[in-house]
Amino acid sequence: MPTFRLIEYQEASPEVRAVYDDIMTTRKTDWINNFWKAIAHDPATLRRTWESIKQIMAPGALDPLTKELLYVAVSVTNNCQYCIASHTASARKKGMTDAMFHELQAVIGMANETNKLVTGYQVEVDEQFKPPLADSISPFFANLEHLYGRPVYFHCGTPVLWLAGPGKPTLDHS
Amino acid sequence: MPTFRLIEYQEASPEVRAVYDDIMTTRKTDWINNFWKAIAHDPATLRRTWESIKQIMAPGALDPLTKELLYVAVSVTNNCQYCIASHTASARKKGMTDAMFHELQAVIGMANETNKLVTGYQVEVDEQFKPPLADSISPFFANLEHLYGRPVYFHCGTPVLWLAGPGKPTLDHS
Amino acid sequence: MPTFRLIEYQEASPEVRAVYDDIMTTRKTDWINNFWKAIAHDPATLRRTWESIKQIMAPGALDPLTKELLYVAVSVTNNCQYCIASHTASARKKGMTDAMFHELQAVIGMANETNKLVTGYQVEVDEQFKPPLADSISPFFANLEHLYGRPVYFHCGTPVLWLAGPGKPTLDHS
Amino acid sequence: MPTFRLIEYQEASPEVRAVYDDIMTTRKTDWINNFWKAIAHDPATLRRTWESIKQIMAPGALDPLTKELLYVAVSVTNNCQYCIASHTASARKKGMTDAMFHELQAVIGMANETNKLVTGYQVEVDEQFKPPLADSISPFFANLEHLYGRPVYFHCGTPVLWLAGPGKPTLDHS
Amino acid sequence: MPTFRLIEYQEASPEVRAVYDDIMTTRKTDWINNFWKAIAHDPATLRRTWESIKQIMAPGALDPLTKELLYVAVSVTNNCQYCIASHTASARKKGMTDAMFHELQAVIGMANETNKLVTGYQVEVDEQFKPPLADSISPFFANLEHLYGRPVYFHCGTPVLWLAGPGKPTLDHS
Amino acid sequence: MPTFRLIEYQEASPEVRAVYDDIMTTRKTDWINNFWKAIAHDPATLRRTWESIKQIMAPGALDPLTKELLYVAVSVTNNCQYCIASHTASARKKGMTDAMFHELQAVIGMANETNKLVTGYQVEVDEQFKPPLADSISPFFANLEHLYGRPVYFHCGTPVLWLAGPGKPTLDHS
Repeated sequence: MPTFRLIEYQEASPEVRAVYDDIMTTRKTDWINNFWKAIAHDPATLRRTWESIKQIMAPGALDPLTKELLYVAVSVTNNCQYCIASHTASARKKGMTDAMFHELQAVIGMANETNKLVTGYQVEVDEQFKPPLADSISPFFANLEHLYGRPVYFHCGTPVLWLAGPGKPTLDHS
Repeated sequence: MPTFRLIEYQEASPEVRAVYDDIMTTRKTDWINNFWKAIAHDPATLRRTWESIKQIMAPGALDPLTKELLYVAVSVTNNCQYCIASHTASARKKGMTDAMFHELQAVIGMANETNKLVTGYQVEVDEQFKPPLADSISPFFANLEHLYGRPVYFHCGTPVLWLAGPGKPTLDHS
Repeated sequence: MPTFRLIEYQEASPEVRAVYDDIMTTRKTDWINNFWKAIAHDPATLRRTWESIKQIMAPGALDPLTKELLYVAVSVTNNCQYCIASHTASARKKGMTDAMFHELQAVIGMANETNKLVTGYQVEVDEQFKPPLADSISPFFANLEHLYGRPVYFHCGTPVLWLAGPGKPTLDHS
Repeated sequence: MPTFRLIEYQEASPEVRAVYDDIMTTRKTDWINNFWKAIAHDPATLRRTWESIKQIMAPGALDPLTKELLYVAVSVTNNCQYCIASHTASARKKGMTDAMFHELQAVIGMANETNKLVTGYQVEVDEQFKPPLADSISPFFANLEHLYGRPVYFHCGTPVLWLAGPGKPTLDHS
Repeated sequence: MPTFRLIEYQEASPEVRAVYDDIMTTRKTDWINNFWKAIAHDPATLRRTWESIKQIMAPGALDPLTKELLYVAVSVTNNCQYCIASHTASARKKGMTDAMFHELQAVIGMANETNKLVTGYQVEVDEQFKPPLADSISPFFANLEHLYGRPVYFHCGTPVLWLAGPGKPTLDHS
Repeated sequence: MPTFRLIEYQEASPEVRAVYDDIMTTRKTDWINNFWKAIAHDPATLRRTWESIKQIMAPGALDPLTKELLYVAVSVTNNCQYCIASHTASARKKGMTDAMFHELQAVIGMANETNKLVTGYQVEVDEQFKPPLADSISPFFANLEHLYGRPVYFHCGTPVLWLAGPGKPTLDHS
């Protein structure tokens, strides 16, 4: 059991219900997962955390699936079982294929290995890698949308045309 | 300084040079970063690590930029300064924009925060999140390539048309 | 099950019993928790660990409850489930209210988030923050005890009057 | 250097300046530390992070110094050098004595040690420690304020009278 | 349950079976543990991981038991329950006595504690400890094998004569 | 600089000097490394930590070099730069060869990788690995000492004859 028992919708205060409602609306779902029910004992943290998640996980320069994969990478590295289970499921819902899952895990494993080889061999940063970051990539693709006559979405830094529908999809996020 | 001084190309054994050559050819570059020069004292580890990296970071179900972003996420969570500097630079080289960098860091920060909230509140996994993973997404897009008459590349689970060139680009990887 | 089965009091050696007795006396309780029973297979580690805990967790410049909260903060960051459960319960026993628990978790979560933002953005330490630490705070409060005619206890760096009894309480520690 | 060069006040956008101003006002100081200048390249993250910090680190059921000590505990466990330097300095500014610093470090060290002993011996949680948390401590002190005729502040779960001034101090927080 | 159900031998593809067979042959055992069955959904990762493990865990300058102890030390520090259980069992199979287990855990606990004391006190590296590593130890023992007329095996840097058999044992590794 | 300036021998209190003296005598050296000088501001922690280290790192069922290697494994996994530098140097002093260093790092890297693969694939512990640990290995070697007419030292669970001298060496430890 969690530190405090879960707060279900029907017993929640109006303040908590408002957040639950927004979660379900935003995610186009009809249930609330345990994480929110557990922290609902602290309405301020419930609201602040949800507002942050909603802002951060929304489609932007990175698409929602990529963000879920990043979430899984952090959660595996931190060994957070709840987070691994929930974000792996979320990534699946957003389109993660089996092949993508396998490559994700391979990268996580490899990164953890080389992180430690670098550390154990006490390697110093190359001059070429030292910040600040090199100037931004050229604005080559800035007017691609006009060129192609349909919405262009940036997927991981690459301009792409969405094939799934007539325009940029309104992906749910969570 | 690293635990052992770096091994430069001109003084390297043929076995080590062969790996250095493959790194430069694969990455289309003319220099070797410190990590490889530091572990070259152990040619078996040098070769094994490079072969693994080459296999794992190559384009596949996930594109090379997404893999770099995942590498950064793991490295930040592990607090590996060399790895953060080198993979942030690599991600930039592969097309990471400023906006993508900012969203990447926001997701890493948020994931680390909620990982700990979940843990501190001792939240249990919802039935809906428990593995095994739900069946794979429908093979809806399987014949998209035929439909569109040009190569379709799966970007983070979404079928996309590459606009940058006549087909699937031969991205360098590292 | 633990790596070795738990050693109960009645089957324990005199050396182990002596530690168990001291734990129960110091903590004003009549039972021994699993941690001690598990490491009792190594009496040297049992004694050394208990003596260290007894010394470190006793009231001092920091009160026992604050020390328990710090223990929880470390345990959550390390994701140690046993330690989270046991020290959350201990903190409760020492007076942690629901509100304190919620604020504790919020700080832990936030600290983990900003730790990663700092790291990911490769921020350098400000001159003003570089050690060594600034001189100790002024001895302004040194003779407060005389002023108020009753014992003054320093709670987290703030001079306070205890209201719970006639003087500084003899808090149990664990 | 950080990933992006620091954004100073005079060159900041109005949106960023508004946050800088609020930081300086809230903290009663006239400078901005590097962390904020580094993330100011992402105004959304700058604002969200500052609003969260301001809310979480304000005086509440836990006093600001205790919150700083918790921040240090997390930062040491995560090995975040910037955060250790900045929050150790902040804790000092809020009243951390040398003795408190030493006890803080001793608790952090001990907690990290026993976290690993528990884990290595694969110890299972005692029934007595399993959540949910026991009922809240009795509301014994609820009307203490009336009794004493002056504001009562809860310090780490203990009701205290503030001696530093005529009432509850308006502590700066950061 | 794991993310994907386990792949048993009888249903495995020839590619996967070949790895399973090599694992059983190398380890002189007739069963496959869950780790391999879980990652077998990704034959490339299965093969790469097994080949790496086989190479790294084989007897070399460090004997297989020492390598298992190191594996346990990493796994406890990372809090990986599966890995702790499996490598503790493997270490036992390779000869870890109770006393060795207890000392192993004591070292892990102590290292985690002093790691944090060093970090919290912001201690800088002594000149004497800075890399590169001092020249290799003298080749004093280089011809010991001739001296003793039987194979000499280097155990943790100490030349030893094996008593268990007529020469260097062919230890299984895993 | 460390949080507090280092306390040198000549300015140390008798209590601190006594610990410094014991460190130098035990380690057969004439200098004190920064760690002790930094924590000497808290004599209780200085003494407790030294006494624990002296007890834990002394020769026992595991030899001092193996213990140093374990210390390095934990320190690399925790990314503690001071600890990596100091314990790598100590391991060298105790006989770690280049080959041993390379194998050590390879094991640390591999263990960190598979720790994450296990976690990401959510693998459950095999029945065969579940604690408690199998009965101790047979006392086969119990009277080997008599058989061989000279001291037998257990090296990582293997009975060995020391070749370096007439008996079990009195290794320094640190």
